[in-house]
Amino acid sequence: MPVITVIGDGQLARMLQTAAIELGASLRVLAAKPDASAAQVSADVRLGDYKDLDDVRLAIEGSDAVTFDHEHVPNEHANKLIDAGFNLQPQPAALIHAQDKLVMREKMKEISAPVPPFAAIESVEDATAFFDEVDGAVCLKARRGGYDGHGVWFPSTREEVETLVEKLLGDGVPLMAEKKLAFTRELSAMVARTPSGEARPWPVVQSRQENGICVEATAPAPDMSDELRKRCEVLSVTIAEELGVAGVLAVELFEYLDDNREPTIAVNELAMRPHNTGHWTQDGSVTSQFEQHLRAVLDLPLGDTATLKPVTVMVNTLGADASPEMPVYQRVREVMARFPEAKIHLYGKDHRPGRKLGHVNVTGEDLDNTREIAELAAHFIVHAEWRDGYSA
Amino acid sequence: MPVITVIGDGQLARMLQTAAIELGASLRVLAAKPDASAAQVSADVRLGDYKDLDDVRLAIEGSDAVTFDHEHVPNEHANKLIDAGFNLQPQPAALIHAQDKLVMREKMKEISAPVPPFAAIESVEDATAFFDEVDGAVCLKARRGGYDGHGVWFPSTREEVETLVEKLLGDGVPLMAEKKLAFTRELSAMVARTPSGEARPWPVVQSRQENGICVEATAPAPDMSDELRKRCEVLSVTIAEELGVAGVLAVELFEYLDDNREPTIAVNELAMRPHNTGHWTQDGSVTSQFEQHLRAVLDLPLGDTATLKPVTVMVNTLGADASPEMPVYQRVREVMARFPEAKIHLYGKDHRPGRKLGHVNVTGEDLDNTREIAELAAHFIVHAEWRDGYSA
Repeated sequence: MPVITVIGDGQLARMLQTAAIELGASLRVLAAKPDASAAQVSADVRLGDYKDLDDVRLAIEGSDAVTFDHEHVPNEHANKLIDAGFNLQPQPAALIHAQDKLVMREKMKEISAPVPPFAAIESVEDATAFFDEVDGAVCLKARRGGYDGHGVWFPSTREEVETLVEKLLGDGVPLMAEKKLAFTRELSAMVARTPSGEARPWPVVQSRQENGICVEATAPAPDMSDELRKRCEVLSVTIAEELGVAGVLAVELFEYLDDNREPTIAVNELAMRPHNTGHWTQDGSVTSQFEQHLRAVLDLPLGDTATLKPVTVMVNTLGADASPEMPVYQRVREVMARFPEAKIHLYGKDHRPGRKLGHVNVTGEDLDNTREIAELAAHFIVHAEWRDGYSA
Repeated sequence: MPVITVIGDGQLARMLQTAAIELGASLRVLAAKPDASAAQVSADVRLGDYKDLDDVRLAIEGSDAVTFDHEHVPNEHANKLIDAGFNLQPQPAALIHAQDKLVMREKMKEISAPVPPFAAIESVEDATAFFDEVDGAVCLKARRGGYDGHGVWFPSTREEVETLVEKLLGDGVPLMAEKKLAFTRELSAMVARTPSGEARPWPVVQSRQENGICVEATAPAPDMSDELRKRCEVLSVTIAEELGVAGVLAVELFEYLDDNREPTIAVNELAMRPHNTGHWTQDGSVTSQFEQHLRAVLDLPLGDTATLKPVTVMVNTLGADASPEMPVYQRVREVMARFPEAKIHLYGKDHRPGRKLGHVNVTGEDLDNTREIAELAAHFIVHAEWRDGYSA
């Protein structure tokens, strides 16, 4: 099997590693630290800074394909490496749409993918004009670098808009604004695409965010018409094709009610890598997003994306405000004892409040029961406490 | 998560590694060579000889649990390490039954587990007497060290028995003989047990051997009464309990027709580690044998062993007599293109005729179709040829 290098050392790179091993390969990892989540479990770790061109070049030497577990490699570096003959997937021409929220929305408009009304914000006047245009329903976003709720603001008055935009522009933050949708829920349409053009979507998923961080995903999204389901899948494939994505693409969507009070969708954000809302595929789909990403960046034919069970629920385990006294290993033990069906995935990370430390997948026949188990299990791993008062 | 060391560097250790990573840990591996199957994919490799007490002691220092991917660590070493406070699982008192075929059969008899008639063979006279007793239906076995068809002989005449036994005893091979059963098929009843005594069987599997090597497994075993199915599962649990097994136990079984022409079973061999007939669990069961083995040796509660789909078929990819000209990567590509549902597992090993290089799992609703896909896929990976004449 060919050599793949992943730029990045987080849990996504770690989970790519397990997929690579089963495929007969092993990922090379460019890591910042030897004890980073992916570096801990990799036989071939190169230490370096992903923002340093020389570090990256040295790390990827001899790779058949190079991929990423984040979108932060500077595009000017990526372009130089491509010019030097390296096979980076996805390529900067696609990646830019996961890096720059304004460029992405302009592209969506161009390809007729639905997005909420938006505007570039280069002055306080741009911002107040947009505020008026959308009747105050403004969401302000840093064009670059935001994640997990960072880089997003919801000013509620014209004055707040003025103060905020003046400050952010003064700090050199490139901005855009978007109409805040009264959405009914968030969805995620995931797809993988190869450089040769094969694309396979997974069933669209319902996700739940808290403070801008994904906390739960239900696959397939419940209570949805076949028509809308199909529309989400087709949209994800169209975007992957139009943007020339290689690898996994997550299309985060808002579902909201249109003027006829019918559910419809708009694109929220794009990510071009395995995504939190795709972790369910590890235990709920024939092909996991991690295996699929590797196949895609190697331009191998893609795997079946069918579900294994009627329902899979994924719940993140995020670091609690204070780490419980009970050691994590003991918490895992208690969850295993109560829920033999829970699939526990841990990232080898130290506790920090709000940090993504792992997730729990549960597959089942019945939505409510499956979700209840996944939520109880994840809650116990985080808090060492049964939310339903259970005692062993 | 605790540190686990696995003594052994083959594909079983490799697949334990992927399970360990998802559980938030990483296996330490005692390997003979840095490029061994498991060593290639392990961040913590200790090079050494598993037969050398000092090598083993050094490798396992600081481990919370120590386990094996084979049964060949000398028991006197294992006992010394246990006396020194190391937590070896399974323990020699159990392992001896997977090491010595005579000790195993004597134990089976003691606990009333069904085995074919057998005898210790310490002289040519023992052998000829047994030959007469079973009307010439003799299978001769080396008590220790046999695997994949090695160490098993089927002499067909009294003279052959005499010559063979004289030679083997002369060479110092400890022997036993067993009545050759006219079996209808081979089955495998797999179970995991923790040191605390929790045991969970998987559904019994039908396996197919060629030249003594497992080539295919179908889960659950088709065409079987619920009563016999249950009997196999109960038998595996009983054996695990009576022998004090910790970890995964494979009970290889013969199915044959009793005097009333009803299917019944007898124990063939035992293995105390993940087993080839359990590879299907990676893609066909809620809990894979690799995750379960880790949970068991760590004395964690065991995972659900339910199937994900009505049928899973596993077919080994064994090295062909001559490696096809088409590179393995290209063969994998073609299989992926034709069968997106095939789960391909490769062990990172160089080609050798008959060598276990990987396996293919396919899950499905229909037995014949699922098996056909798994067999075609594995055949192509081995021979670069579609057995059904398909061309892309």
